[in-house]
Formats: sequence, structure tokens, C-alpha cells
Amino acid sequence: MAGYEPHKEDVIRRLRRIEGQVRGVQRMVAEDVYCIDVLTQVSAVSAALQSCAVTLLDGHLGSCVTEAIAEGGDAAKAKVDEATKAIARLIRA
Amino acid sequence: MAGYEPHKEDVIRRLRRIEGQVRGVQRMVAEDVYCIDVLTQVSAVSAALQSCAVTLLDGHLGSCVTEAIAEGGDAAKAKVDEATKAIARLIRA
Amino acid sequence: MAGYEPHKEDVIRRLRRIEGQVRGVQRMVAEDVYCIDVLTQVSAVSAALQSCAVTLLDGHLGSCVTEAIAEGGDAAKAKVDEATKAIARLIRA
Amino acid sequence: MAGYEPHKEDVIRRLRRIEGQVRGVQRMVAEDVYCIDVLTQVSAVSAALQSCAVTLLDGHLGSCVTEAIAEGGDAAKAKVDEATKAIARLIRA
Repeated sequence: MAGYEPHKEDVIRRLRRIEGQVRGVQRMVAEDVYCIDVLTQVSAVSAALQSCAVTLLDGHLGSCVTEAIAEGGDAAKAKVDEATKAIARLIRA
Repeated sequence: MAGYEPHKEDVIRRLRRIEGQVRGVQRMVAEDVYCIDVLTQVSAVSAALQSCAVTLLDGHLGSCVTEAIAEGGDAAKAKVDEATKAIARLIRA
Repeated sequence: MAGYEPHKEDVIRRLRRIEGQVRGVQRMVAEDVYCIDVLTQVSAVSAALQSCAVTLLDGHLGSCVTEAIAEGGDAAKAKVDEATKAIARLIRA
Repeated sequence: MAGYEPHKEDVIRRLRRIEGQVRGVQRMVAEDVYCIDVLTQVSAVSAALQSCAVTLLDGHLGSCVTEAIAEGGDAAKAKVDEATKAIARLIRA
């Protein structure tokens, strides 16, 4: 079971919305919409995507990582390291 | 004419690829793929989107802003201010 | 005890280096160094700071959050929520 | 003359404040302040730094890039390319 299980429908719904937004940006570009308006929309999509990532991360920490820690042992430390690396990729550190 | 005109096909092609990636992330979530793998893919989509934004911005500076400046007058300053605001939104300053 | 305890000296050393870099940027500005060179240095400081944040976060997850989860109860969930909010601030979602 | 000349004093003043904030973070770490409080402060410093970068970029576009374009020739295109690369580094695309 994935850590985002309780938010699964919500996440899929938001990703579907993001997909629609990306399609909208394609249309804007195809129709030669003014660059700045396209960029504003790209910024909005980017923020929506990051917000999705935070929800996934929250589910992961509250479920998969929590379970690994509750079980104890080396698996816990490995889970935390893995989560930190995912966070680092998100903030592009 | 939009500033990204010379890169129009390339930008649309990349946005179409991003749309496919977002659809792929939906599928991953629907199939309960492990959170970290979903997050890795979300990071990749996010980077692809930012890279698209840089291409749009480059076209905008090299075309719309350049023309406004070449024409001179108050329009030039307004264009630069507008571009700076778009950049600030992208880096979420 | 803070979660970054095992990395305390390393973090302080890196922050001291960042402080020196910020002072260096001030000097660059005072001496009218070319904008792009100043911006390159600001990007480097920004990356160093984010990398510090990842180290602090790693320590927090591996220590404070891990302990709260091992103890169980409501405190664990609160700790995860708090960590997620800190991560969201870092990636400015 | 640097593009940030009109904002020089303001930028130096803000960088000095950032330097003080970084020193404050060192003190927090030295005094074992709670990780999340340290991270909140690191996020604030990071945002202040990005905001400084936007001011520098604005000055650069409105001055150095504007002048290169007004003069025309190949130098204009090179200046725009250079600015785009600096922006890409800032948004880590």
C-alpha cells in the first residue's frame, strides 16, 4: 500500500487538473499567446506540481517512514535517508 | 508574433512530453507505485517544466524585450519590469 | 538535544562559510563588480544554504521525528505534520 | 558601472542584513535550538537572498542589457544569452 493511499483520489484529481493545464499551455503556445501570459501559466502549473509533491511526501512520512521506524532496525534509517534524498531532489539542493 | 516563435515547435513538443509524463504520474498513483518513485518522477516533470520556462523567457528577452528597447521610450522600461516580475514568479522570490 | 547534533560542527562550519560568501557578495557590490558575476555568486550561496537545510532536515527526520514515532501516540503525527510544513516552506510550494 | 548602481546602497544594506541572519542561524545551531526553528530561519534567509537576486537581475536587464540592445549588433544577443543563463542558474532549471 502506498503512503498516499488516503489522498489517492485527491492526488489523481489534482494531477488530472495539472495535465489539463499543461495542455492549455500547449494551446497558448500554438495560438501565439503573449510570452508573459504563457510564463504566468507555467509558474502556476509548477506551483501546483510542487504542492502535489508535498502531499505525496506528507503521506510517505506519515505512513511508509512511520511504519519503518515503528518496526525499528536498519530499515528505519534507510527509509529516512531515502526520504531526505527525495526532498533534496525536490528543492534541487 | 510571440517571442518563442523560433522555438515554437520545440516548446510544444516538450510540453506534449510533459503532458505525457503527468499522465504517467497519474497512472503510477492509480497503481499504488511506491511514493519515492512517484516523487522522483514529479521532480523530473518539474525540472522539464522549468527548463521550458527558461526557453520561453529566453525567446521573450531576445525578441519582445529587445524590440521594445530598440524602439526606445517608456515601453522599454515597462517591458523590463514585466519580465522581472515573471522571473520573480518563476524563482518564487 | 537537537536532531542535527551529530552534524553540529559541520553545519556551523558551512554556515560560517556562507556568512563569508555573503560578505564577499557585499564587497562585490560595493566594488561595482559586473552584475552577472554577482548573480553567479548569489546562486552559489543560495545552493549552499539549501544544502545546509537538507542536512538539518535529515538530522531532524532521523532523530526528533524518529524518536516521536518510536514513542508512538499523537506526538508522532504532529511531528510529521510539522516536518512537512518545514519542507513545504523550503520548496516554497 | 554596474546595472544595480541605483539600488547599490539598498542591496548592500539587504546583504548585510542577510549576513546577520546567517550569523543568527549559526548561533541557533550552536545553542541547540530546535531543528524546525532553525529551518524556518534558513527558509527566510533563502527567500531574502532570492529577492536580492531579483533586484540585481532587474538592474541588469534595465541597464546593461538595455544598453547593449540600444547599441545593437551581436553584443545584444550575447547579453541576452548571458542573462538567460544567469536566470536558469537562479531557478536551477
